[in-house]
Amino acid sequence: MASTPRSVDRRSVDEHRAVVAALLTPMPVEDVPIGQARGRVLAADVIANVALPSFDNSAMDGYAVRAADVAGAPVELPVAADIPAGRTDVPPLHPGTAHRIMTGAPLPAGADAVVPVEDTDGGLDRVRFAAAPDPGAHVRRAGEDVRTGDVVLTAGTVLGAPQIGVAAAVGSATVPVRRRPRVLVLSTGSELVAAGTPLRPGQIYESNGPMLAAAVEDAGGSAELLRFVPDDVEEFLGRLRDRMTDGAVDLLLTSGGVSAGAYEVVKDAFTGRGVEFVKVSMQPGGPQGAGRVAELGGTGVVTLPGNPVSSHVSFEVFVRPALRAALGIRTPTGPSSRPRSVSTGRPHPRRQFRRGVLDAVTGTVRELGGPASHLLGALARAECLIVVPEDATELPAGTRVETWLLDG
Amino acid sequence: MASTPRSVDRRSVDEHRAVVAALLTPMPVEDVPIGQARGRVLAADVIANVALPSFDNSAMDGYAVRAADVAGAPVELPVAADIPAGRTDVPPLHPGTAHRIMTGAPLPAGADAVVPVEDTDGGLDRVRFAAAPDPGAHVRRAGEDVRTGDVVLTAGTVLGAPQIGVAAAVGSATVPVRRRPRVLVLSTGSELVAAGTPLRPGQIYESNGPMLAAAVEDAGGSAELLRFVPDDVEEFLGRLRDRMTDGAVDLLLTSGGVSAGAYEVVKDAFTGRGVEFVKVSMQPGGPQGAGRVAELGGTGVVTLPGNPVSSHVSFEVFVRPALRAALGIRTPTGPSSRPRSVSTGRPHPRRQFRRGVLDAVTGTVRELGGPASHLLGALARAECLIVVPEDATELPAGTRVETWLLDG
Repeated sequence: MASTPRSVDRRSVDEHRAVVAALLTPMPVEDVPIGQARGRVLAADVIANVALPSFDNSAMDGYAVRAADVAGAPVELPVAADIPAGRTDVPPLHPGTAHRIMTGAPLPAGADAVVPVEDTDGGLDRVRFAAAPDPGAHVRRAGEDVRTGDVVLTAGTVLGAPQIGVAAAVGSATVPVRRRPRVLVLSTGSELVAAGTPLRPGQIYESNGPMLAAAVEDAGGSAELLRFVPDDVEEFLGRLRDRMTDGAVDLLLTSGGVSAGAYEVVKDAFTGRGVEFVKVSMQPGGPQGAGRVAELGGTGVVTLPGNPVSSHVSFEVFVRPALRAALGIRTPTGPSSRPRSVSTGRPHPRRQFRRGVLDAVTGTVRELGGPASHLLGALARAECLIVVPEDATELPAGTRVETWLLDG
Repeated sequence: MASTPRSVDRRSVDEHRAVVAALLTPMPVEDVPIGQARGRVLAADVIANVALPSFDNSAMDGYAVRAADVAGAPVELPVAADIPAGRTDVPPLHPGTAHRIMTGAPLPAGADAVVPVEDTDGGLDRVRFAAAPDPGAHVRRAGEDVRTGDVVLTAGTVLGAPQIGVAAAVGSATVPVRRRPRVLVLSTGSELVAAGTPLRPGQIYESNGPMLAAAVEDAGGSAELLRFVPDDVEEFLGRLRDRMTDGAVDLLLTSGGVSAGAYEVVKDAFTGRGVEFVKVSMQPGGPQGAGRVAELGGTGVVTLPGNPVSSHVSFEVFVRPALRAALGIRTPTGPSSRPRSVSTGRPHPRRQFRRGVLDAVTGTVRELGGPASHLLGALARAECLIVVPEDATELPAGTRVETWLLDG
């Protein structure tokens, strides 16, 4: 007769988060062409090689003038030159003349204002000005956006379109970014079958593997999915050893096989081999494991529970922040907000991660489905996770709650 | 002597948005394996082939019992069978016995409750129950999450990790998605030079091309970048005709070359060829163009202004919604919120799109940089666009404003 002791000590969410984050070190740096940098994370500050604007230029299509020459408007002046954008041999402006100038074209030496074409008769040989410009009008000064040597983007920035734009504008042909963490995603369980196969009673379609692989990619990692690994411990370890040669994998992420029951291949394979299996004070997602396995080259292993919702929530809580930290991103989660809750939640002794739908207009969040860990249908309709702290004694409607935006 | 008339009529933002959206039709449908569907947009509802759960199963590791047999707890019963997850030949439970059962394993016929192992002595041959379970305790009922035939995901859903999870769980090996709109991105201007080349006075580094290509990809499109096309109209059109053979491109997106000045190749090439050049009542991003060009196979063309900030903002306002609509996404922009503004803005007769930084804790947004269209440095540090309606007469601190989250 065996006896399973009731588990008493639970690890806090923050403590387990730190344990998981410590399994990854900062990723090495690689240079990528700016055109392939979308979604990558800067490994170093981007310094401006040139100022923006890099020369005084016109903010309008019109005429470059000395403001003093037009002070007595209406005034007519001869047009001495024509300056399209990109002209590199701009003649200086002589007193008593105007230059026709296009938006973005360099302001000629001697000019101190631009009169928009709409405020003139648009003349090509001579031009008549209806009104007097203030000195500096419609002139963009060199360096008023960015000065040479300015830091335009800091290390840890995720490169979206505007960031790629500014890096290109200050002359970066390539940018230094962190390599994507390579994550081997494994789903275990003899009850899992592939889509396309009819289900026998007791079987379920494998869903955690593709779900977690997508979550890894979304978090900036690169995922490889290994499905239907055998439940036998030696075969299981052998299969992983084959795959994880010489640092080809930065993190092994498993789901399932970690609860208190028998026939738990992940737990059986990694117990005593460097992975600590614990109960974390959260709901869903209590049973967690993390550690380094010497037989797998010391690679970090994170074992998530097998329920799809538990698996996804614990990815968001533990693995996404670890991947972001390894990439050098300073905030552990993605976009977050603090809307008002429209649900009246029950107090709970553990940190709860509920699923919610946001209403941007009213600034509120509504809970979706229940707290149970098998309600995947509701998770798929959710827009955010609602974080309910473990010390919340009540959560009346109208309370501000922390929410994390989900991808999709 | 030529004369340029002052432009009087401005097209509204919403009107131009509709014109741009009409250039794209819904993208054709293709089936992709579920493992490659991240970020794609569903073209049809996903219907559950199986219920979730597909069979009554245990929510805990423990013992399946008839609740009536344990009503007089403490009680001891013989353990008649062992049911791991995935067992497909589960024997029925006879009265007065218990089955050892694992999380997710099928509930045997005859059982109506599960007693967690923690509430027992964990016996293998005989098991002692400390407390009586309620009927139905720790049992997940077939179909309580999703019933067979339920719509688990609706057409137009962007597939993130949870959505991929639920589609896989209900048995989808592939999902029908809309093809990514193929966008040819062009940046024009003789002042543009490639990064790595030293700048001469009057020249600037080309940045709109890579920026807009990244924005297209972020919006779910597939971008090809054509840089440094010649300024000569015939060469320009020839180069495009070569590339845009037989529907290989769904949309041509240009930046620059559209303002009121001379030497504007985009305007010169497309005026009278199906593209209408207008002033839109917005700031930045007033000069816009859109239409279909017969000589390019009737392909839609959108011409954005050349200032980087104008270019990016007008992408967000016009092109992102058009791409999303072509993909079948129902909301025109990405995630939005309505934080309180901490800036005191000036009223402006046009719709303004300012750049802002959000504070999730206080639920506020702060303006970054000024409204000028050449301040790319500030755009790259911004987290959102702040939408200031054209009819706003004042915008005191504390006003709720619409914001659109930027990628990056």
